[in-house]
Amino acid sequence: MAPRKQQEIFDATLRLVAEKGYDGLTVEGVAERSGVNKTTIYRWWPSKAALLGAALVEADVLGFDPPDTGSLRGDLVALVEGMIRLLTEEPSADIAVAALGAAVRHPELDARRFFADRFAREREIFDRAVARGELAASADPMLVVDLLAGAVWLRVVFRGLPAPDGFADAAVSALLDGV
Amino acid sequence: MAPRKQQEIFDATLRLVAEKGYDGLTVEGVAERSGVNKTTIYRWWPSKAALLGAALVEADVLGFDPPDTGSLRGDLVALVEGMIRLLTEEPSADIAVAALGAAVRHPELDARRFFADRFAREREIFDRAVARGELAASADPMLVVDLLAGAVWLRVVFRGLPAPDGFADAAVSALLDGV
Repeated sequence: MAPRKQQEIFDATLRLVAEKGYDGLTVEGVAERSGVNKTTIYRWWPSKAALLGAALVEADVLGFDPPDTGSLRGDLVALVEGMIRLLTEEPSADIAVAALGAAVRHPELDARRFFADRFAREREIFDRAVARGELAASADPMLVVDLLAGAVWLRVVFRGLPAPDGFADAAVSALLDGV
Repeated sequence: MAPRKQQEIFDATLRLVAEKGYDGLTVEGVAERSGVNKTTIYRWWPSKAALLGAALVEADVLGFDPPDTGSLRGDLVALVEGMIRLLTEEPSADIAVAALGAAVRHPELDARRFFADRFAREREIFDRAVARGELAASADPMLVVDLLAGAVWLRVVFRGLPAPDGFADAAVSALLDGV
């Protein structure tokens, strides 16, 4: 399938889940909105869970390039700022909150792939920091990512509070300098 | 209403949401399971969202007493261990994951109250630490809680990975000693 057509299918998928939730997402609806035949979509993705799982990882609208600011602190602050944007700015906020919220109830919608894919890309931040001597080789990158990403999710989604100015700096400083 | 009857209604509510999800939760179902008249339940809680919101905060099965071990480090490790149990051990895991997952899609189910209530009780950990001279008065307790609770949610719910042995110690040490 042409990459552009694929992105149109992913766009339609993510828009539908943002508008109608996972229960309202159907391959028929995606076919209608993207103008691609339903049987063609099923040939590539055997279920709506597979389609949404692929869209979460491969859609340009949720594209993720790990920051490279020259320092671990700068990279982590940029990472947290990106997570805040992802979960609070449109179009990504409605998409991410609806899809990740649904993944909790629908294990067949494999959110683990989304997190594993992002973590594979985030690792280079930590590899560079170890190479620069900013971070011990024994440090646990997944723990750092889970602390930071989890704090953003808790604050803006579960508490429904804004991340105040300086939230990213304060969160990273708590980790790098201690509370 | 007698406290014991109220707890029976909360139990029925939480069991139903764990079994059937938020969409499958009905006041009729709670009435049937608890043996309390539907109109009586509606007199106390005007909607299923209000009923589940109250159950999340007031049900004994989700009861929460902040740890008091004598040190900030010990209290935070016990807090994280409690969060891991909440999200991985039954009966609380199915309840908490279903209810908090649903809250993302249903703002009328006010998860903020659950988090605000817990945070109000967690504050004493930080108040005691400041009084003991273990923590600067300028420290941000909500940030610490969001980092720790968020890391548990990310790891065990979104990533679907077990929290390895020593996860609570490592997470708290990252915050108190720096990464």
